[in-house]
Amino acid sequence: MTVTPVGTHCILELFGCSPELLNDEAFIRETVAQSSREGMSTLIQLSSHKFSPQGVTALALLAESHISIHTWPENGYAAVDVFTCGETANPQLACAYLARAFDSDSHTLRMLPRGFTTQGSHGPSTTHLHEESKLCPAVN
Amino acid sequence: MTVTPVGTHCILELFGCSPELLNDEAFIRETVAQSSREGMSTLIQLSSHKFSPQGVTALALLAESHISIHTWPENGYAAVDVFTCGETANPQLACAYLARAFDSDSHTLRMLPRGFTTQGSHGPSTTHLHEESKLCPAVN
Repeated sequence: MTVTPVGTHCILELFGCSPELLNDEAFIRETVAQSSREGMSTLIQLSSHKFSPQGVTALALLAESHISIHTWPENGYAAVDVFTCGETANPQLACAYLARAFDSDSHTLRMLPRGFTTQGSHGPSTTHLHEESKLCPAVN
Repeated sequence: MTVTPVGTHCILELFGCSPELLNDEAFIRETVAQSSREGMSTLIQLSSHKFSPQGVTALALLAESHISIHTWPENGYAAVDVFTCGETANPQLACAYLARAFDSDSHTLRMLPRGFTTQGSHGPSTTHLHEESKLCPAVN
């Protein structure tokens, strides 16, 4: 059974970010849109929501998959994921841009391969999927 | 430094799904909406896009974070993630529902804790974030 990864799913944790920026829905929308460009991907739709009393979620639907961000301004924390497929996009560049844009003091990035089996009729690509996620301590 | 997970990020791979269902945008929108209910979460916005010649992406913005699905009908494969925070939602139930809804022959589920530091001014919650993802081979 051969495994073909469809892409890379980056799980990014941003710490020590600017609380003001993390609570600014307009800034977050523009920053996520820009991160899609930095990551050489194509934005198709962008949805967002501002929570009460604080916090923002933005979801970018990309031609190459998606970017999500959920913010906790009270903790200076944002949970991000950038999932891109194909040969062109570079999700690490999008992650690096986001870490800079939110003035993050520190961050961690886990990179998960995603994929499907290309030979063999069914069944999970066990070797591939059970592989440990690759941790990249610095992206910028 | 104490770590408080904000929630759980489920990375779900669905194999051997119905190609017809994976290419049906209306079905996918309804299924994702229902999965948010199954997972005891609250849907705020739902965006989707049908690709040419095939494949669908749907993104659900939840009060508790998000659900995403990207489909490859030609491979019977769907890449899903369900991220929920808070005490009420149960992302595993949403994953189990999605696996059933797409007639998946097999699937894998990785569960990643997400979180921020609640003591200590800055810095990543290293112990927590470098923890191996927990693999749950069956969700339904």
